[in-house]
Amino acid sequence: MKLYHAQSSPNSRRVRIFIAEKGISLPLHPVNLREKEQFSDWFKAINPRQQVPVLVLDDGRTLAEVPAIWRYLEETFPEHPLFGADAVDEALITMWERRAELDGFAPAMEGVRNDATGLKGRALSGPHDYDQIPELVERSKRRVSDFYEDFNSRLEEAHFVAGDDFSVADITALVTVDFATAELKMPLPASAYAFRRWYEKVAARPSAKA
Amino acid sequence: MKLYHAQSSPNSRRVRIFIAEKGISLPLHPVNLREKEQFSDWFKAINPRQQVPVLVLDDGRTLAEVPAIWRYLEETFPEHPLFGADAVDEALITMWERRAELDGFAPAMEGVRNDATGLKGRALSGPHDYDQIPELVERSKRRVSDFYEDFNSRLEEAHFVAGDDFSVADITALVTVDFATAELKMPLPASAYAFRRWYEKVAARPSAKA
Repeated sequence: MKLYHAQSSPNSRRVRIFIAEKGISLPLHPVNLREKEQFSDWFKAINPRQQVPVLVLDDGRTLAEVPAIWRYLEETFPEHPLFGADAVDEALITMWERRAELDGFAPAMEGVRNDATGLKGRALSGPHDYDQIPELVERSKRRVSDFYEDFNSRLEEAHFVAGDDFSVADITALVTVDFATAELKMPLPASAYAFRRWYEKVAARPSAKA
Repeated sequence: MKLYHAQSSPNSRRVRIFIAEKGISLPLHPVNLREKEQFSDWFKAINPRQQVPVLVLDDGRTLAEVPAIWRYLEETFPEHPLFGADAVDEALITMWERRAELDGFAPAMEGVRNDATGLKGRALSGPHDYDQIPELVERSKRRVSDFYEDFNSRLEEAHFVAGDDFSVADITALVTVDFATAELKMPLPASAYAFRRWYEKVAARPSAKA
């Protein structure tokens, strides 16, 4: 199998960190977003939704969407589980990862896409063109700020986002903080001390370089 | 275990249909959204995010978020799988369910929440108050319309959303169509003939009454 990704794509990074944590070695094929390679015919043939990352299996079938790629890799390489060890852990990890995505990752992305000059008319990734809505930028930033506060409370009582162990929920939270810091100029505030303590720990893992 | 839900909540319905398809019998505890019971102290103690559905386990732990509840029930009651039978099927179902949610369900919800008079200042469900953005209503409707077209193409080539078998991807798509029809006055258009053919079949399953 083979992973199509882009170095600058936060969704691609969610998969790269996962692979690094698992210790899986996988051929990576870069897609050049700056040159709009995701809209090229050859890439549309791989993923009609024109998004990275995509995992192409040996039989040619393609898997898109980060949680789908994660699930496949977790089933195929069960060592070093990132979705927990039993049904309750798996459900709690699914819940917390989703909260990180819906409350942190998605608003950070929305804030950037509705603002960037280069994304005029492309407020949402995917096959359709939608205009930017400037009002969404401020609302998205407020949401990221609320996410920082909510997850700080959570991390006052838990070592990792979903409990005692590092999981996919930590991957999404880490990628969100780095993306919001770089693209929205919203680093974790000093008041989010538990979230910052968690960040130091998680960002120091070798996988964070992925 | 026990499921807190609301009859009018589309997210609750996603879980009720799942349970019906599985043939699981589970005590259901209604939360009265009209009387704002989700904001009551007793319910906040169960789910601080003030959302239904929530599954409370026998040991008192609580699971929120539809995919988390689904995963737990799938692991606990493996008969009549709704996430496929092997790793590739599971990943493809995860992918298609997510597309139904991100491209159909979420925009339909966004269109309603940014428009309804009763939801002024509550454009997003959850613990924080955000103002409505009227421009989002039109964009959301365009997205639902694009979703109808995209899924029509998909259903020209597949019996069910994720392939040959009924899965959670069909549940989300069905709930989306019914919600968009009732709340956005956007039924499936005549041109979406494959999607309509699928709808007739899926809406006729006994679980659709849930």
